[in-house]
Formats: sequence, structure tokens, C-alpha cells
Amino acid sequence: MPHLTLEYSKNLDTFSAGAALLDINRALLASGQFEEADIKSRAIALDCCQIGVQDLPRAFIHAKLAILSGRSPEEKQRLSELSLQALADSAALPPGVEVQLCVEIQEIDRASYGKRFIAR
Amino acid sequence: MPHLTLEYSKNLDTFSAGAALLDINRALLASGQFEEADIKSRAIALDCCQIGVQDLPRAFIHAKLAILSGRSPEEKQRLSELSLQALADSAALPPGVEVQLCVEIQEIDRASYGKRFIAR
Amino acid sequence: MPHLTLEYSKNLDTFSAGAALLDINRALLASGQFEEADIKSRAIALDCCQIGVQDLPRAFIHAKLAILSGRSPEEKQRLSELSLQALADSAALPPGVEVQLCVEIQEIDRASYGKRFIAR
Repeated sequence: MPHLTLEYSKNLDTFSAGAALLDINRALLASGQFEEADIKSRAIALDCCQIGVQDLPRAFIHAKLAILSGRSPEEKQRLSELSLQALADSAALPPGVEVQLCVEIQEIDRASYGKRFIAR
Repeated sequence: MPHLTLEYSKNLDTFSAGAALLDINRALLASGQFEEADIKSRAIALDCCQIGVQDLPRAFIHAKLAILSGRSPEEKQRLSELSLQALADSAALPPGVEVQLCVEIQEIDRASYGKRFIAR
Repeated sequence: MPHLTLEYSKNLDTFSAGAALLDINRALLASGQFEEADIKSRAIALDCCQIGVQDLPRAFIHAKLAILSGRSPEEKQRLSELSLQALADSAALPPGVEVQLCVEIQEIDRASYGKRFIAR
């Protein structure tokens, strides 16, 4: 934890997902809330999307940040805002497409979260 | 919001995920609960699945509908039911395979949800 | 339900996701908490990952187990532990890579969960 999942519609062919992950990870690290190696992020390109019911040039990038339960509403808002800002800064978006950028914060139940670190 | 994620086991080769997304989006729009352009749906074909522990012809389609927190239990049930009905109506399923269709409703914490709309 | 999702960074090329799913399903079945055919598991290989902000040989495998709401904290901890153990037992991990294995338990709202079983 934290686990970040970035989903984006594949019509955003100018979007560099790897660079965006690194930028968001840097912002999360700078928040002072997380250990560096704990920030685990992944991006998933979505081949099959449907926004609304109309056939228009639309796209979205959605970030879900999953953190252990127990943080205050203010901390969660701040993590959401800095993730959204990092995403907006890093996303080179194509003209002529309506793009929705979204961030949600999801809590992971702390008591049942398990983790092992394996190095050999 | 809402965000719909449709996952399906790839042995359902007759399932048209794009058409199912459009049908579900139409049903969600018809519910009167959402703005048209806000309904963001994606489908993910699952290459690697395991249902139970037996080697049988089994498949599943799972829809997760994530909505902002604050709706009543009755509204959530209604959204679940109409999504399941739209999915069942649109899914041309192969014979000889046991298929499980599932819908879950997940809440997104409203206070920390962030969104930007970019058009240029 | 339950729904298990196993995500793993694609640099784990010795990891056999299909075998891991079967091992975890067997452990979940042995817990006595679930019907055999209800255990629906999938694995997703992640092409694009970023752990922390450094360029080091790192990897992760993350299991999310989604179960209907209402189980006790002790039951959830036990399900997390047995999933983590099954994952650790089944994962042949490469040398020279730091690997994080994680398990989270997520609750699905029971009242709005819908399911249909179709066989023909």
C-alpha cells in the first residue's frame, strides 16, 4: 500500500502511461505519507470503452488510489488532489477529444491486509 | 461517476462486450440517476480465469458499478437489478457452458472524488 | 462471490498465474466458507508498472479477495492469511528481484449484489 491503478481509454494514443505513473508516484512520495518502495502503481489501457450512449470523441483517465483505512477525510482529499494534479500535468492530451480525468480514493481494510517482502 | 467495469472470461467468444456496455449504459441513463456523459464503462476480457477447482466448462461475466456514496439501499438495488437485466438481455451465451452473471455495487467516497473535464 | 483478482507485474516471467489461481481456490474452498463453483478467480499481467520512484528490480503480486459483507474481522484475517500463504507457496520467484506479495480483503455490499446462473 498504497496501490494506484490508472485506467485509460486507448484512444488516448498520445498519453504516456509510464511517465504518468512515475509523476504520480513522485507526488505521492512527496506527500510524506508513504514509504518509497510501498507505492505500487500500474496502468491499464482499455481497448473496449463506452462513455455515455453517444458516438462522440470522448476519452477518460481514471486513477484509483487504494490506501489503508484510518486516514482523515482531509488527508484523503489532499491525496486525491495531488494525484489529480500530477495526472493533469503529465497527460499530453490530443485536441478534439473531450477527456475526463478522475481520481477516487478507496480504503483497504487495515486489519485484514497482508504483505510479505521477498528478496533473495 | 458512475464507473462500470465489465469483466468476462475469454471462453465466452460469442459475447459482444462493446454492445453489452452500450446496452448497460442506456439502462443506467434511463434510470434518471446519471448525466449521459458521466457514464464511463469499460470491458476487460480475462485470459486467465479459474472458477472453483474443477475442470468444467464454466464462464462468468461480472459487472462492478461504482457510484458516489450517498444513495439509498433501494436505489443501489435498483441499479444492480437493471444492470443485471441489461447484461442478461445483451449476452448471447454459448450452449454447454455454465455462465454466472454477477453485479456488484461499489461506493466511491464522495468527499475525496476528484474530476476534471478537458476539452480543447 | 467470492471474486479473487490477482495482479502481477510482468517482469515475473517465472510466475505461473494459472497454477497460483488454482492453489488459492483450493485454499479458499478448504476454508469451508464458500461453495466450490462460486469461487471466481482471474489473473491480470501488468505490462506497465512503477514501484516507488527508483529504477530497481522490483516486482509485486497483489491479490484482492472480494467477499460479501457480514463476515467477522477474524474470518477476514483468516481468509487473507490463507490466501497469502497459498500465493507464497505457489509463486516461483526469480532471484535478484525484490517481490512484494500483498492480499487485501474487500467487502461487496450484500444487499445490492445480484447473480444469475445460466446453463443450457
